[in-house]
Amino acid sequence: MAAIVSAGFSRFGKRKEGILDIAAESALPIVRKHRDSIDFVLVSNCYSGEFNSISGLNNLVTTYLSMDTVPSIRIDNTSGSGGAALFSAVSLVESGRAKAVLLTGVEKMSDRPTKEVTRVISSLLGEREKAAGPSLPSLAGLLTRLYMDEFGASRESIAQVAVKNHRNGALNPNAQIQKVLTLEQVLQSTVIMDPLRLFEISPISDGSTSLLVVPDDMAESYTDKPVYVKGIGMSADSSFLTDRKTFTDIPAVRRAGDIARKQSGIDRPDFAELHDMATVLEIVQSESLGFFPRGEGWKAVVDGVTEIGGELPINTSGGLNSKGHPIGASGVAQTAEVFLQLRNEAGQRQVKNPSNGMMMSMAGFGNSATVAVMGVEQ
Amino acid sequence: MAAIVSAGFSRFGKRKEGILDIAAESALPIVRKHRDSIDFVLVSNCYSGEFNSISGLNNLVTTYLSMDTVPSIRIDNTSGSGGAALFSAVSLVESGRAKAVLLTGVEKMSDRPTKEVTRVISSLLGEREKAAGPSLPSLAGLLTRLYMDEFGASRESIAQVAVKNHRNGALNPNAQIQKVLTLEQVLQSTVIMDPLRLFEISPISDGSTSLLVVPDDMAESYTDKPVYVKGIGMSADSSFLTDRKTFTDIPAVRRAGDIARKQSGIDRPDFAELHDMATVLEIVQSESLGFFPRGEGWKAVVDGVTEIGGELPINTSGGLNSKGHPIGASGVAQTAEVFLQLRNEAGQRQVKNPSNGMMMSMAGFGNSATVAVMGVEQ
Repeated sequence: MAAIVSAGFSRFGKRKEGILDIAAESALPIVRKHRDSIDFVLVSNCYSGEFNSISGLNNLVTTYLSMDTVPSIRIDNTSGSGGAALFSAVSLVESGRAKAVLLTGVEKMSDRPTKEVTRVISSLLGEREKAAGPSLPSLAGLLTRLYMDEFGASRESIAQVAVKNHRNGALNPNAQIQKVLTLEQVLQSTVIMDPLRLFEISPISDGSTSLLVVPDDMAESYTDKPVYVKGIGMSADSSFLTDRKTFTDIPAVRRAGDIARKQSGIDRPDFAELHDMATVLEIVQSESLGFFPRGEGWKAVVDGVTEIGGELPINTSGGLNSKGHPIGASGVAQTAEVFLQLRNEAGQRQVKNPSNGMMMSMAGFGNSATVAVMGVEQ
Repeated sequence: MAAIVSAGFSRFGKRKEGILDIAAESALPIVRKHRDSIDFVLVSNCYSGEFNSISGLNNLVTTYLSMDTVPSIRIDNTSGSGGAALFSAVSLVESGRAKAVLLTGVEKMSDRPTKEVTRVISSLLGEREKAAGPSLPSLAGLLTRLYMDEFGASRESIAQVAVKNHRNGALNPNAQIQKVLTLEQVLQSTVIMDPLRLFEISPISDGSTSLLVVPDDMAESYTDKPVYVKGIGMSADSSFLTDRKTFTDIPAVRRAGDIARKQSGIDRPDFAELHDMATVLEIVQSESLGFFPRGEGWKAVVDGVTEIGGELPINTSGGLNSKGHPIGASGVAQTAEVFLQLRNEAGQRQVKNPSNGMMMSMAGFGNSATVAVMGVEQ
């Protein structure tokens, strides 16, 4: 198994810096301290070609960090890149092929107009669906409607996810939108795809987050508060949404969660970071991960179960919804939030004495999912 | 350690099919036989966004192959993607995180005009060099001049690499250019960047190659002729060419080779597949890998040492030069040639009874390199 021993952050948002500067912002605090140990670099990134007209990003990052001779790879799994990169980092140290992996997730999206960003991201859809012209936000709108219809969820319960996550994000100095919102403000924001509103969708973001991943038996030589990866699973599903039996359950998330839970022996984590690209997705995922019975996740939101002070806090970081969603960085940032929480370093949004936490990194609409359970004990 | 137990091929060239069809062409022969075993898919690809307007390629490939639930990642390291993907596959099976990795390298480049392809590939250069406006072929022209000047190599000796590799490629049913060329034809072809000529540069290619990578101790349950990865190393160098002390030695190649040689205990392989994006590169690499003393690789070419029947055959497949260079597929195809040769399945281009072979997959102008030594014995 592997452990995470250090994390670095950039603020998410619309940034004027270039992608290499943004990557360095989160990587440098780790590199400065552990330059001599780092023997592999993984760069989690999906769209440097489309958004920044750059290829060979991983090698440019190592050059930029003055780690010329350190081998590197760019890991891409669209929105789920960060999860896939964590999985790869764990595998690299477990195999002995690397002893200290710097994992830097980065995306710089704001160079392109919103319309183009949406079009580029929709390029992950299958031909059939592309022909029909949907985008990921429009599919999220459809899912909101389907979930409400199937389970009798109130419109307010879904918008409440945005209220919660913006409240959490306002406590996160690295979040893109640090603004508390009322339920009314969420429900009265611009319609993106009826019934889904602007504040219920993750913004277009620039940003990076970095982690240092080492073999578990070396972790204590780096820090006296290592965070151990106790279980990690990846699963996938058809890229063609029309192949799915239902949208209100996400089988890839369910399967990846089962693997991570079984490996870790932890059935129900103390808190979780989920992939709330749209509010409704957090609820559906919380059910697919077995936190709540199917069709009842929305009630948990209404009842405050998923608040920071609740029984199972979700997206204490603000989630993609408020923290922002720089595609390649998101899964890394989710993991970094678990890292901070487990070290009791999450400041005003700290969960009370957690001993383990979960992160779920998802691609597309459940095309792929990685779930990791982390803990303070080996 | 890991073993390769199966390989699949598409013909390289200008293909009318889409990237998914091309990927499936090499993957399907493996998938048909081992569908139930494959538990991870790595897609080695660099430019699906730029060339094919597709993201999430890895997930589209698994969907297309009807392996919906199998997790997948896209591995990118520009021209060296295939080597990085092999390194990742080895690490995945060694860590126990996967038991059978389908590794599919694919690129579809011919959808875009040559000028755009050259521009996109040059996007891996650092800002400083980009501003000066060179492309990779123009840098190869410069290197040809430098190598000749520094070591007194004859112009003919360098062009002879193209003669050899086209002769080999003519024996490879999957090669793009299956045409024997005379030295005169090479030296009289269009000047690309003086003194480098058209037939000395790899063409723009579409194509894919696939491998099945499993833990070494499970290899014999798949085939009675496994090929073992006995050593594999990755190294890197600055993306800024102006940082390099010399161009006539490639330190990343040298270092990666040292790792692979030390791990495998094999100092001098029976044959090798190198990254002859330009003729001169094959010669420089053969020196950086220690096959020949510095400045003497060109003599080995003239003396026929690197011919199929020579003492150390190089690029029996035809190399990138004649076989073609679909960026993400190249390193996988180089590995597949070693696989075929070690199984005595290389047909008319078969090396006589080799017991081990080496492949070297390179990114940029030595920005990164992966060297693997494979053998018929564990």
